[in-house]
Amino acid sequence: MDFPLTHQLGVVRRRIPRADAAARDRLAGFGVATLHEAMGRVGLMKPYMRPIYAGAHACGTAVTVLLQPGDNWMMHVAAEQIRPGDIVVAAVTAECTDGYFGDLLATSFKARGACGLVIDAGVRDVRTLTGMGFPVWSKAISAKGTIKATPGSVNVPVVCAGAAVKPGDVIVADADGIVVVPRLQAPEVRRLARDRYAKESQTRERLKNGELGLDFYGLRTRLTELGVVYVDKEE
Amino acid sequence: MDFPLTHQLGVVRRRIPRADAAARDRLAGFGVATLHEAMGRVGLMKPYMRPIYAGAHACGTAVTVLLQPGDNWMMHVAAEQIRPGDIVVAAVTAECTDGYFGDLLATSFKARGACGLVIDAGVRDVRTLTGMGFPVWSKAISAKGTIKATPGSVNVPVVCAGAAVKPGDVIVADADGIVVVPRLQAPEVRRLARDRYAKESQTRERLKNGELGLDFYGLRTRLTELGVVYVDKEE
Amino acid sequence: MDFPLTHQLGVVRRRIPRADAAARDRLAGFGVATLHEAMGRVGLMKPYMRPIYAGAHACGTAVTVLLQPGDNWMMHVAAEQIRPGDIVVAAVTAECTDGYFGDLLATSFKARGACGLVIDAGVRDVRTLTGMGFPVWSKAISAKGTIKATPGSVNVPVVCAGAAVKPGDVIVADADGIVVVPRLQAPEVRRLARDRYAKESQTRERLKNGELGLDFYGLRTRLTELGVVYVDKEE
Amino acid sequence: MDFPLTHQLGVVRRRIPRADAAARDRLAGFGVATLHEAMGRVGLMKPYMRPIYAGAHACGTAVTVLLQPGDNWMMHVAAEQIRPGDIVVAAVTAECTDGYFGDLLATSFKARGACGLVIDAGVRDVRTLTGMGFPVWSKAISAKGTIKATPGSVNVPVVCAGAAVKPGDVIVADADGIVVVPRLQAPEVRRLARDRYAKESQTRERLKNGELGLDFYGLRTRLTELGVVYVDKEE
Amino acid sequence: MDFPLTHQLGVVRRRIPRADAAARDRLAGFGVATLHEAMGRVGLMKPYMRPIYAGAHACGTAVTVLLQPGDNWMMHVAAEQIRPGDIVVAAVTAECTDGYFGDLLATSFKARGACGLVIDAGVRDVRTLTGMGFPVWSKAISAKGTIKATPGSVNVPVVCAGAAVKPGDVIVADADGIVVVPRLQAPEVRRLARDRYAKESQTRERLKNGELGLDFYGLRTRLTELGVVYVDKEE
Amino acid sequence: MDFPLTHQLGVVRRRIPRADAAARDRLAGFGVATLHEAMGRVGLMKPYMRPIYAGAHACGTAVTVLLQPGDNWMMHVAAEQIRPGDIVVAAVTAECTDGYFGDLLATSFKARGACGLVIDAGVRDVRTLTGMGFPVWSKAISAKGTIKATPGSVNVPVVCAGAAVKPGDVIVADADGIVVVPRLQAPEVRRLARDRYAKESQTRERLKNGELGLDFYGLRTRLTELGVVYVDKEE
Repeated sequence: MDFPLTHQLGVVRRRIPRADAAARDRLAGFGVATLHEAMGRVGLMKPYMRPIYAGAHACGTAVTVLLQPGDNWMMHVAAEQIRPGDIVVAAVTAECTDGYFGDLLATSFKARGACGLVIDAGVRDVRTLTGMGFPVWSKAISAKGTIKATPGSVNVPVVCAGAAVKPGDVIVADADGIVVVPRLQAPEVRRLARDRYAKESQTRERLKNGELGLDFYGLRTRLTELGVVYVDKEE
Repeated sequence: MDFPLTHQLGVVRRRIPRADAAARDRLAGFGVATLHEAMGRVGLMKPYMRPIYAGAHACGTAVTVLLQPGDNWMMHVAAEQIRPGDIVVAAVTAECTDGYFGDLLATSFKARGACGLVIDAGVRDVRTLTGMGFPVWSKAISAKGTIKATPGSVNVPVVCAGAAVKPGDVIVADADGIVVVPRLQAPEVRRLARDRYAKESQTRERLKNGELGLDFYGLRTRLTELGVVYVDKEE
Repeated sequence: MDFPLTHQLGVVRRRIPRADAAARDRLAGFGVATLHEAMGRVGLMKPYMRPIYAGAHACGTAVTVLLQPGDNWMMHVAAEQIRPGDIVVAAVTAECTDGYFGDLLATSFKARGACGLVIDAGVRDVRTLTGMGFPVWSKAISAKGTIKATPGSVNVPVVCAGAAVKPGDVIVADADGIVVVPRLQAPEVRRLARDRYAKESQTRERLKNGELGLDFYGLRTRLTELGVVYVDKEE
Repeated sequence: MDFPLTHQLGVVRRRIPRADAAARDRLAGFGVATLHEAMGRVGLMKPYMRPIYAGAHACGTAVTVLLQPGDNWMMHVAAEQIRPGDIVVAAVTAECTDGYFGDLLATSFKARGACGLVIDAGVRDVRTLTGMGFPVWSKAISAKGTIKATPGSVNVPVVCAGAAVKPGDVIVADADGIVVVPRLQAPEVRRLARDRYAKESQTRERLKNGELGLDFYGLRTRLTELGVVYVDKEE
Repeated sequence: MDFPLTHQLGVVRRRIPRADAAARDRLAGFGVATLHEAMGRVGLMKPYMRPIYAGAHACGTAVTVLLQPGDNWMMHVAAEQIRPGDIVVAAVTAECTDGYFGDLLATSFKARGACGLVIDAGVRDVRTLTGMGFPVWSKAISAKGTIKATPGSVNVPVVCAGAAVKPGDVIVADADGIVVVPRLQAPEVRRLARDRYAKESQTRERLKNGELGLDFYGLRTRLTELGVVYVDKEE
Repeated sequence: MDFPLTHQLGVVRRRIPRADAAARDRLAGFGVATLHEAMGRVGLMKPYMRPIYAGAHACGTAVTVLLQPGDNWMMHVAAEQIRPGDIVVAAVTAECTDGYFGDLLATSFKARGACGLVIDAGVRDVRTLTGMGFPVWSKAISAKGTIKATPGSVNVPVVCAGAAVKPGDVIVADADGIVVVPRLQAPEVRRLARDRYAKESQTRERLKNGELGLDFYGLRTRLTELGVVYVDKEE
């Protein structure tokens, strides 16, 4: 980055390259587990992140926010940068469970076209958010509010729940977790996911009919090579 | 307290001053987040406390219980002290996840008029409790039962999930957490919550219409003062 | 065990003594809390184990699996050992939250007659699993997949979530947790559970009518002996 | 409290009743475990609180601080309220691991006569603090600094690591944890601790000589009454 | 086991087969990591278990204890069963951090010849224990004492910190953790550990001289086969 | 990155731009807390990372490793890429506490000139590592070993304990934690740290003489503006 160091917290980028909307939308049909496999098992957020209601699902281009502990000022700054199809990805500079986001910000985000929020901290008003159908993945639920005193940044690279996210990346989130698809890789990931999905559908059929993974994955020989012993007597 | 030290565990207060019933009931219409804000952001229990079913909501006057680890004797003692409109708030003298409370005690509490339970430990029979519509907020769910060997206390001041609770305080609990409103402050908190709610309703309308928090909270000027830089080039 | 030490990881027992099917099924009607009490309060898994959907319930004979961290190979080996009425109990040799199990394995397990899975690690595809009605209790939900590189064992004694499980033991799991009933004790546990349940039903009736546990458990005298003081003045 | 509600965060009490200095100092010779027993097993902070160096020990009168998350302003306000023999007890209105306290504040606290710090959050500069011999008990060590934007309070009742603390209470902290002795109970607790200690010294001698607790605590009979069975065959 | 179910908690076995003393002592010279490798990577307790002082090391035959939450009665019962060279391994029927063990019990255990304690709960008086050189591995340090109300068992199979332990097994504990060597496998494990240690010593020499594991483990070819790419340009 | 997606795990970069050695070494004299402040409070790893021995300190240029769960193959690959003055920074694609690193790898790393290791997982042989004076910061200590089956990457950007690290960045680690100084910013961070340190030294002198932070930070006026009330009566 070519900003002086002291500006790292205090930058709002208004123009970011976003993943192609069509490419993004084609990812929406895949589950997070399938996409994560397709990507070669990178880009997954930590499993402590949980949706606030069952059935939550989202696929959007990331508007990133870097927050200070207990301070949600930059969420308001981020609101202005949201375009339809975006999802907000919020990281904090230290561990915090405060409720940075509630129904007011959700109203604003929704009005700007956001399709969800992923936040490595807490949220509140979860009953109202559920009623609004605004999906959120968070590490905590907390009624504790936040202040507006110290700037952070918007649309800078962040680390959220253990995953590196750049503005404009595609974020897909469902009941299994949250995966980050780098902006330019969306088409390739989609292709790989589709292939994987097709293969899994065939596999599913065979398994349903009672075939064993041991057989059609061809795992038996290697088991023997590695010295696994089948024992038939009852102990 | 004027009891000798050795009686701190071993006291049951039968007469406690309770928050005024009407004042208490007027708090029931507010969410925990709103009340917590109205109180100046004090009195919130830790976010690890979770309702055992979605949609749980309660507002009652606190009957407090101080329990020993793995021992639910005082829950039975507390049952007798419950009056209609009360909520039981149970603390333990050490960390414990045992299931102190199940459908039998819930039957008893309900028969006495309790509207819920907040317990810094575990509960069990959660399916039955859900069927009964008896709301519980706990730190764990565990089938592990408890014994009845060592006395604790009922209706003494306790610390539950990080919050100080006095018998007779108003407890409001919902999906966002649990807030403790000191007995005599119920009317003032209600007034402040109502004002806050009214203001938030207006805000919500404006946000829905696309206005930005940045503008009507007047946050732009201070952002500039603090050196936040808006950048337009794409990196 | 009479295998050389180096084979402890690398054993698949094909013939295990299972708890009698009728005895097993008679346990299905009891809650985990009741069974745990009936057993004298042993055999419970840790409360961090949670069902992936509300209402999950299972009762089966254990097929055990000992997995390596991040490696689900032995789940496929276990599939072949499943018989109708079994439940798979999976332990890992180190702490791991990876998603060892998803809809493909669930399809296979179901085709073999398994009635559920208890795993001291992560699972994925939870939405599909929920749709299939295949109940799982796990310590995490994670989209992270696993490899097939290092053998573990099937149908050896394991420690899962803090409980010792032998192949063929009866596992009962519901919203309150998971209890392990040793294979040969199923009939006795059932008898004790039934007695307990009957007694609790009577108790429930009396509590519903407003009687107090203090009275019919006869707890008042001992409270006094232990020096518990009832105080009537208001402080 | 007779301050208006909105002032709860924003109060600095300059005059607090402190436990008698002689009574306080007489508690310093006892371990936390002994004092906690003497008090009837109440008043202990949670075991996640740990000293920053081995051998840390402190006994002082509490100057309390209620902090905002990520904001250490009130630590500076508290500094002015410290008198020789005090220990600062700092609570936060939400969970936070930031480093609120380092060698500069320690220099200031020491200059004012403080004998230690107990903080339900993080500290930093622990190597320097160790060199200074300034004992701190905290829940985290973190280099993350804090801001000075939002007032809290000084010398109000707080909940720190699960224990209620009033300004002027005696705090004793060592390798086993931290105990809170209410201000006026210091003399009685000291007397009870001394008796307990004397008794334990005798016990220690007898145990050293091979006598068994089973015998001189008279535990054998009750074991038998409760149905405990001694088994001699080797299984 | 041939005791009726209700006696599972309530059994004290006085005669247990212990691992051969010479075999046990020969294990003492190996680190836990080496032994765990030698055993094929089974039998390790969870890494949350930590020694109470740096340099703690122990190797003994297990006297097992099954405790109730918050109740250390059976520790006194266990004391009587200790013979020189034993180490006590204590499990609890539910999660608990209470301080079950302090300097009095340590005095007693030491007088009986115990060489240490492994406990899946809390201990106290750690400064004195350190001074006595009595090594303890625990999951918590807590000044909280325990009661003597409910029996558990002594010398029954237990699960401690995720590992199954039988009375008489060899327990080796050091800075890296705690490993359980089944009673009859001590000689074989010792042989395997010695071989491993010898091999590691040679390896150490070669690594010290700058040879690479990549080369003498022969890892390069397989890296290439798996498609790993070495890149030389600087990005 | 211009590698095809499927190669993200499976890349070893042999030539990386490293921070200037002189610039790096000039950072070694500063504490992590000071550097973190100088950087504007970004770049800190999570506080769960802890040194394996007291007094550990390191400052080096990062060689990064991306590991698979339970697999330390790439640590051996990384060894070859180490140059004198480097520190290895190891991330895992999923949560894992296994012991990836022990005295053998330490011998190798040291022979290549590494000055330490930062790993978001477990390590073992900590007593030997301490004896060798080889500093390690980790999230766990575990005797559990790892396999060599699945490739990861070396010298790619990683997220370690919540912080983004690029190969060649400067890593400074001490008792307070670990900070990442981006490669090209080392000189500026050093200048800012020096200024900050100088200022703090002056501050320290004044505080030592009893001056209050309240005064020379000029905090009193704003306290009043924000409505903080000083109270003199004793309640």
